[in-house]
Amino acid sequence: MKIIYILFIFTFFSFTISRASLNDFCVGDLKALNTNSGYPCKPLASVTSDDFVFHGLVTGKTNNSFKIGVTSASVANFPALNGLGISAMRIDIDEGGSAPLHTHPDATELLIVVQGEITAGFLTPTSFYSKVLKPGDLFVVPQGMLHFAVNSGKGSASGFVAFSSENPSIHTLDLLLFANKLPSNLVAQTTLLDLAQVKKLKARFGGSG
Amino acid sequence: MKIIYILFIFTFFSFTISRASLNDFCVGDLKALNTNSGYPCKPLASVTSDDFVFHGLVTGKTNNSFKIGVTSASVANFPALNGLGISAMRIDIDEGGSAPLHTHPDATELLIVVQGEITAGFLTPTSFYSKVLKPGDLFVVPQGMLHFAVNSGKGSASGFVAFSSENPSIHTLDLLLFANKLPSNLVAQTTLLDLAQVKKLKARFGGSG
Amino acid sequence: MKIIYILFIFTFFSFTISRASLNDFCVGDLKALNTNSGYPCKPLASVTSDDFVFHGLVTGKTNNSFKIGVTSASVANFPALNGLGISAMRIDIDEGGSAPLHTHPDATELLIVVQGEITAGFLTPTSFYSKVLKPGDLFVVPQGMLHFAVNSGKGSASGFVAFSSENPSIHTLDLLLFANKLPSNLVAQTTLLDLAQVKKLKARFGGSG
Amino acid sequence: MKIIYILFIFTFFSFTISRASLNDFCVGDLKALNTNSGYPCKPLASVTSDDFVFHGLVTGKTNNSFKIGVTSASVANFPALNGLGISAMRIDIDEGGSAPLHTHPDATELLIVVQGEITAGFLTPTSFYSKVLKPGDLFVVPQGMLHFAVNSGKGSASGFVAFSSENPSIHTLDLLLFANKLPSNLVAQTTLLDLAQVKKLKARFGGSG
Amino acid sequence: MKIIYILFIFTFFSFTISRASLNDFCVGDLKALNTNSGYPCKPLASVTSDDFVFHGLVTGKTNNSFKIGVTSASVANFPALNGLGISAMRIDIDEGGSAPLHTHPDATELLIVVQGEITAGFLTPTSFYSKVLKPGDLFVVPQGMLHFAVNSGKGSASGFVAFSSENPSIHTLDLLLFANKLPSNLVAQTTLLDLAQVKKLKARFGGSG
Amino acid sequence: MKIIYILFIFTFFSFTISRASLNDFCVGDLKALNTNSGYPCKPLASVTSDDFVFHGLVTGKTNNSFKIGVTSASVANFPALNGLGISAMRIDIDEGGSAPLHTHPDATELLIVVQGEITAGFLTPTSFYSKVLKPGDLFVVPQGMLHFAVNSGKGSASGFVAFSSENPSIHTLDLLLFANKLPSNLVAQTTLLDLAQVKKLKARFGGSG
Repeated sequence: MKIIYILFIFTFFSFTISRASLNDFCVGDLKALNTNSGYPCKPLASVTSDDFVFHGLVTGKTNNSFKIGVTSASVANFPALNGLGISAMRIDIDEGGSAPLHTHPDATELLIVVQGEITAGFLTPTSFYSKVLKPGDLFVVPQGMLHFAVNSGKGSASGFVAFSSENPSIHTLDLLLFANKLPSNLVAQTTLLDLAQVKKLKARFGGSG
Repeated sequence: MKIIYILFIFTFFSFTISRASLNDFCVGDLKALNTNSGYPCKPLASVTSDDFVFHGLVTGKTNNSFKIGVTSASVANFPALNGLGISAMRIDIDEGGSAPLHTHPDATELLIVVQGEITAGFLTPTSFYSKVLKPGDLFVVPQGMLHFAVNSGKGSASGFVAFSSENPSIHTLDLLLFANKLPSNLVAQTTLLDLAQVKKLKARFGGSG
Repeated sequence: MKIIYILFIFTFFSFTISRASLNDFCVGDLKALNTNSGYPCKPLASVTSDDFVFHGLVTGKTNNSFKIGVTSASVANFPALNGLGISAMRIDIDEGGSAPLHTHPDATELLIVVQGEITAGFLTPTSFYSKVLKPGDLFVVPQGMLHFAVNSGKGSASGFVAFSSENPSIHTLDLLLFANKLPSNLVAQTTLLDLAQVKKLKARFGGSG
Repeated sequence: MKIIYILFIFTFFSFTISRASLNDFCVGDLKALNTNSGYPCKPLASVTSDDFVFHGLVTGKTNNSFKIGVTSASVANFPALNGLGISAMRIDIDEGGSAPLHTHPDATELLIVVQGEITAGFLTPTSFYSKVLKPGDLFVVPQGMLHFAVNSGKGSASGFVAFSSENPSIHTLDLLLFANKLPSNLVAQTTLLDLAQVKKLKARFGGSG
Repeated sequence: MKIIYILFIFTFFSFTISRASLNDFCVGDLKALNTNSGYPCKPLASVTSDDFVFHGLVTGKTNNSFKIGVTSASVANFPALNGLGISAMRIDIDEGGSAPLHTHPDATELLIVVQGEITAGFLTPTSFYSKVLKPGDLFVVPQGMLHFAVNSGKGSASGFVAFSSENPSIHTLDLLLFANKLPSNLVAQTTLLDLAQVKKLKARFGGSG
Repeated sequence: MKIIYILFIFTFFSFTISRASLNDFCVGDLKALNTNSGYPCKPLASVTSDDFVFHGLVTGKTNNSFKIGVTSASVANFPALNGLGISAMRIDIDEGGSAPLHTHPDATELLIVVQGEITAGFLTPTSFYSKVLKPGDLFVVPQGMLHFAVNSGKGSASGFVAFSSENPSIHTLDLLLFANKLPSNLVAQTTLLDLAQVKKLKARFGGSG
């Protein structure tokens, strides 16, 4: 009787089941071409529990000019996030360090402070919004806003960041302006920065032109 | 004169026409990898009137424990629905039968009662919403809600279901809990069901662990 | 012990519960101004099981020129559909009758034939897609396509229609062209219909100009 | 010191950078199958400045019955628009000419008049909205509305059109009704046009049936 | 000269600036009626830096049956999240405790383990996906999946959760089934649980019927 | 006979018609609170043809430091665009002038060059994309990218811009960095600009701190 039941329940639902699972998630096949809605889905038969886990959202190296360590888990290294509209990052900032001004053109950022003191803020054409944050505090940066985070306390500071995209891009202002070959005089003309200042930072960030 | 006109109208619109059709619909190519926005589109040249028709949304077999027959038309067997955000199902429930508790994680369900009496309802953490339905009545189950339908009358009952997704999945609670290999004590711990109850239903639904 | 448990479970979930329900559904408050995402939500406290039911998706009157009866359940008379992206209609067509050419600018239509024979089809700039349908057959009309349905059999025909919108609009071609005050010569100029034809149908559909 | 900095800044951002760019834009690979979210993305390494430019949104030929010239830049000839939800068109209408009644099932149209006088309007089941436009005037046609534009002044008129889709389709009413093989009596039955009128325009637009 | 410049730059941008800010974010006015797209926006003039900060994502009380503490920051207590599609939660689970089986019908969950050992998993009709997690590990639960988290180690465990919704609801299975007035025999019929089991848990969770 | 027909056609469609129109467009009521999906809709009865027209997308004044004139038509001054995802702008740049570096966090920009020569470009962390444009050329700037436009020819240059949002915001880099009260040393720390440079531009753009 039970056997019969089981067979029937699987019979009348089996069509739906085999198809439905593709819909429940879509682990990205990173070897296929990306699309506007993310990567094509890996076949269900090759999906395992391991796909849904990411290891190593730990402290990154901070031996750089901004004294910031960043590790991130997004669709490129955690393909199960494909299509799910979320990803995460861990940041660690040494005393005196900062996250330089940058935007995420395609994601809201939610910062969770875990250790130390961080002053975070974002800029609008008419104002700016900024706060000193302690462990247990959250700060939200709406999508596309130019923003910063500074270790404003003693010792190192750390936190987690959640993004409203599985594939957030990071547009660091200095890299946009000074790390490529855009002619220095064009940068100067469209920012009103002094040409000497532009050239100085171009040299520092490896740009030319 | 007319000939000339026709040529010109086809000349200046021909570019748009050839491309536009791809946009008007996207019959799914089920052999390609699925994506978060559905299947890639079958080439327009191979689309015919037959693609837009589905045959056989008729009474399904009800010789199972829940005495319910289900036939469904969704993107897997009706690829023209690809990207259109809609699909349909026919349910037939014998006297005393029911649709067991289940969710559609990705679709709202709209039930149209055609014959008999069906008591349908859905559950929320603080309440439940349920009604006795007669032919000509509709009941809506918002996306993701745990819900049921019971033949609460004499004789068999039937109805049509429309979903707000071309590929709705069905998560029947008993199958989630009792048809797989999730350890019985884990099920018991995270539901507070008695372990004996879990094992009894695991046996019935073919699960183990 | 149980009592204590219950208190605690309600304590730590109570915040979430009270808020979450607003998210699970949004029964429309039709007296408030509509928005691009639908009507504002009726307060949860005033929502009852009755909100989720619609009565009377039954045969409409067919004593008109097209011999078609239409009853519909959409957000305007079934406010629980608000935000859920689905609605339904019942059509009954007497022998020799039809649903005249029309579009739904904002919804895909899925037709389920229940009785009789219906020939349904839609038009594109380069082709048309049409089929003769019998009970148990479905036909899908992608969003925005100009389409028709004709009772092509003996006796009356009927079916259910599901829309991928809770508020589908119906743009019947004859009403657009001939039921308003748009000057007849402008209609003639932009359709190449004969002016006499335009005036004849303007008279029939109550238009002027 | 600067050198070291640069190395590190590229080290800790390099992972993000290489991936982020795919997200910043998605130049369409038109040789791949289209999807509901557009074309798959061309690999970043093959994207150049040329991809983001379109040449030739200039006056189209107007030697046709409606005396209208149309040139358009959409994803089919400007693949960088893929996924960005925008495209453009230039229209030129000789004195006495018009854009015949048509719909864009999937896009809002924003018309910018540059030269001459254009009377534009759209139709709803209960009304119509129409205005005489001069250079510097804009007119908006919401998605899916049947609309027209007539050169109502002296000399030629011209304008630019922006669409809220990278791939807007154009459904010209005359082509839908009269340029295909849909039987003339079916057109007559579902529009109430006289059969002779239908056959006359079928002949003019190259249709049959 | 600079003064003049400043005046002009503010003149020609001032129109845009005053309006643009409404678009950059939409801090929710919780006293207004909610909508399908969230709460109406608080006027810009009353928005301050304090709006973008949440205090107190700290350890919640765990003196309950499941030994779990939950604190959450979502639109209801952090209105700046309105419309931004993200929110956060902190969970702390004592040794032997768990997060009972539940779904989030409208959000993907991304769990970041900070301390201890957590075994997390979710269920599908045909399988389950589960892993033992350590600090620095992430686990993702796709939207609508029934899932659990168990402290499977020594001592207490804690983590942060990010949701892909600013207003995720929590549907705990036991509360859905046993905390309301849905008749016990209906629960038994649609789950195949023994009636005695249903009544036992109804008593425990405060339900009746 | 015709009279009777007309009465009936209006009877059986009247319900749908009155409701459908609200769905076809949603002219914004700017006096109501904005929402994440735009402004609430003005009642249909008060909508006229005038709502769908905007007058004055003409040359703006260029007597400012950047020698650029900007006029824009977006939801704030053209409320019919509400919910339609499109807007427009006209730019005129005197010889030697430019549009300074800026982003549109929420819109793609499509530039149509009408007169003169414009060099337009956008920046990414690893590259930049830039072209010299002539009349009839288009350039697309994907959402959120930092970009510029320079009059690189003789005489004045002009063009139209279409945005993929009815309410695009403009974040001019200089205004973000130098027109508010964000402390100069914080700007210097998070950009590596020299403090003197920051103070110099703060003075020029009216900022302080």
